[in-house]
Amino acid sequence: MNIKFSERVSKLKASEIRELLKLTEEPEIISFAGGLPAPELFPKEKMEEIAAKVVREEGEAALQYGSTEGIPALRKIIAEQRLTAAGIKNPNKDEIMLTSGSQQGIEFSAKIFVNEGDVIICESPSYLGAINAFKSYQPKFVEVPMDDDGLIVEELEKAIKENPNAKMIYTIPDFQNPTGKRLPAERRKKVAELAAKYEIPVIEDAPYGELLYEGEKIPSIKSFDEAGYVVYLGTFSKTFCPGLRLGWVYATDEILQKYIIVKQGVDLQTSSFDQRLAAAFMSKYDLNQHIAEINKVYKKRRELMFDSMDKYFPTGVEYTRPQGGLFLWVTLKEGVDAAELMKEALAEKVAFVPGGAFYPNGGNKNHFRLNFSNMTEDKIVEGIKRLGNVLKKYY
Amino acid sequence: MNIKFSERVSKLKASEIRELLKLTEEPEIISFAGGLPAPELFPKEKMEEIAAKVVREEGEAALQYGSTEGIPALRKIIAEQRLTAAGIKNPNKDEIMLTSGSQQGIEFSAKIFVNEGDVIICESPSYLGAINAFKSYQPKFVEVPMDDDGLIVEELEKAIKENPNAKMIYTIPDFQNPTGKRLPAERRKKVAELAAKYEIPVIEDAPYGELLYEGEKIPSIKSFDEAGYVVYLGTFSKTFCPGLRLGWVYATDEILQKYIIVKQGVDLQTSSFDQRLAAAFMSKYDLNQHIAEINKVYKKRRELMFDSMDKYFPTGVEYTRPQGGLFLWVTLKEGVDAAELMKEALAEKVAFVPGGAFYPNGGNKNHFRLNFSNMTEDKIVEGIKRLGNVLKKYY
Repeated sequence: MNIKFSERVSKLKASEIRELLKLTEEPEIISFAGGLPAPELFPKEKMEEIAAKVVREEGEAALQYGSTEGIPALRKIIAEQRLTAAGIKNPNKDEIMLTSGSQQGIEFSAKIFVNEGDVIICESPSYLGAINAFKSYQPKFVEVPMDDDGLIVEELEKAIKENPNAKMIYTIPDFQNPTGKRLPAERRKKVAELAAKYEIPVIEDAPYGELLYEGEKIPSIKSFDEAGYVVYLGTFSKTFCPGLRLGWVYATDEILQKYIIVKQGVDLQTSSFDQRLAAAFMSKYDLNQHIAEINKVYKKRRELMFDSMDKYFPTGVEYTRPQGGLFLWVTLKEGVDAAELMKEALAEKVAFVPGGAFYPNGGNKNHFRLNFSNMTEDKIVEGIKRLGNVLKKYY
Repeated sequence: MNIKFSERVSKLKASEIRELLKLTEEPEIISFAGGLPAPELFPKEKMEEIAAKVVREEGEAALQYGSTEGIPALRKIIAEQRLTAAGIKNPNKDEIMLTSGSQQGIEFSAKIFVNEGDVIICESPSYLGAINAFKSYQPKFVEVPMDDDGLIVEELEKAIKENPNAKMIYTIPDFQNPTGKRLPAERRKKVAELAAKYEIPVIEDAPYGELLYEGEKIPSIKSFDEAGYVVYLGTFSKTFCPGLRLGWVYATDEILQKYIIVKQGVDLQTSSFDQRLAAAFMSKYDLNQHIAEINKVYKKRRELMFDSMDKYFPTGVEYTRPQGGLFLWVTLKEGVDAAELMKEALAEKVAFVPGGAFYPNGGNKNHFRLNFSNMTEDKIVEGIKRLGNVLKKYY
């Protein structure tokens, strides 16, 4: 067979996270690799009742084709419950389109804003699933450095000025993936202002803002967006059920129309059934209450992970201490390759994601990402202990 | 606001079908426009029981992230039940990836095989949702003429020879959308041979093969594919429930790997819940039985539409008489613009899809497509009667 593929996919490689997830599916592996919610916290009893009710009461619509934008009831709930929680005043439900997870909104953003060779500005490091999605549009990446408070806005402005063909800024302001860092309100305001000043869209990827274990919520970048350049991507994957694949785009109508046209071509619409499940659940039950319950568990797991790392990791290994989200970020001394370390860790039946893949332009191999939401408490302690033993060979 | 979009989306327009669907959502409209199954035939009682059972028995997995390829149980069912029904011997379940409807497999095909300016070969006319999806990759289209038996394979070979940068053949061999024509077995064999001879992938879009009201099944093009150049796109949207958005790609591993990587970037995976609903339904109930039930109804509606057209349409209006599928194709005399006709029809509260959008290179305005699956019998008679009255002004 001699098959020719397009240039855009010839160089694409499978995401390390997804390939790792396969390895780590073996039950004896203690995995800190994925970004999976704790499945034992899914509201199963309520969902059993809701699933039957949706088929019974609205089955013909739930099993039929629907509109590309998504069902009005769910868009209304997203506007009233979730966008207001992100500090957005009077959100317009007509400027929301449902997506199949926020991953789809990420991918569409590159399709909509970026020509081949154009520049995407992102944090350094950034979410590897976004980097891989963007790569299929053959952009250049300009990475903006972060400090303890996330993206340095002066460096962002510099990057915009130096790259006139920058077409999009991609940022994760809340408990960033992979570092767990959070952008303060004044910087968010500044990002929105830069977007307007330089007429460049900001893609605000916001899956983690409601997973808050300490301190106060910070309003979204979108909440400071007066000029309409910020595209807000939300999701129910971290706060409800990722298996339903429900995310959304919230953007000015002129921009949202492009997302709708692209979605028509890509998959017509997100599952009618899953949308109606979510709408029925959130009409009857309080999602905030559910989020409060999972936050209680994640907070405890996070603290246990901190404590275990303090106890078992050798001196000299550095790590972030996020106040929310799902991840923390480990920095090793120069010269240690976390991908090599991963092999040794897997031999000890413990997994994480090596940091290299989070840097679109390469380098920076001396980091890795740990997830603290998915494993139970005993596994967290045992896994970190094993990881400490592997690390001790390098220190 | 001054926002720059990418070249690929700047020229995209919203699909006429989707925009029409909005207009035709008004309950007083008799719509022959969409390709919607009859919602009253959805297996609602069984699905109510199955939905509750899936949450109860496999809720943690059904609500959680899963693999990009799709759940093994459903891939096995697709291989054993549906691919064998398409005449494929010993299908390999590991060469199946679930998609969010077959629309997604269509869109991915252009992403995977077509560079900007490359040629896509398709039937003339072809499915407008595919044409719109392909357009975002900025290809050229070469349309191959059909006769009463569909694609003329000599013309196809000529098109391949004349276009060395043709990268993909897109075809709908069963009860084609929009014409309802069906490709005979010997032509299917020839298409598979041409794919191998010229080393060009064939995308076989096969949503309608099982909606058969007369005659015998014809094996898929894929069933004749010895060299591995045929990509088979299947779906449950026409035979089960489109709201679940479940389709699949069946292709040689080397090709399937590209679809998997692309899907990782686009939306990670198709809904875990919807996949498990389908698998649980098809493990317990016989989908063939369900298909036989809907075929009985669609056959009757189709015959009623034929009879009504024979009775109410003026002499000189031509139309196909498909033995299966969802659509038939009306040809008006030269000079009549079906888009103009549509306005008059909508004034009479009856809708169809004007044919122009099914020709990627334009022209051919004197056609329209009618769907016969979605409207009840009394509406079919009444709608065709009204349409006949509109048509009489032109004849």
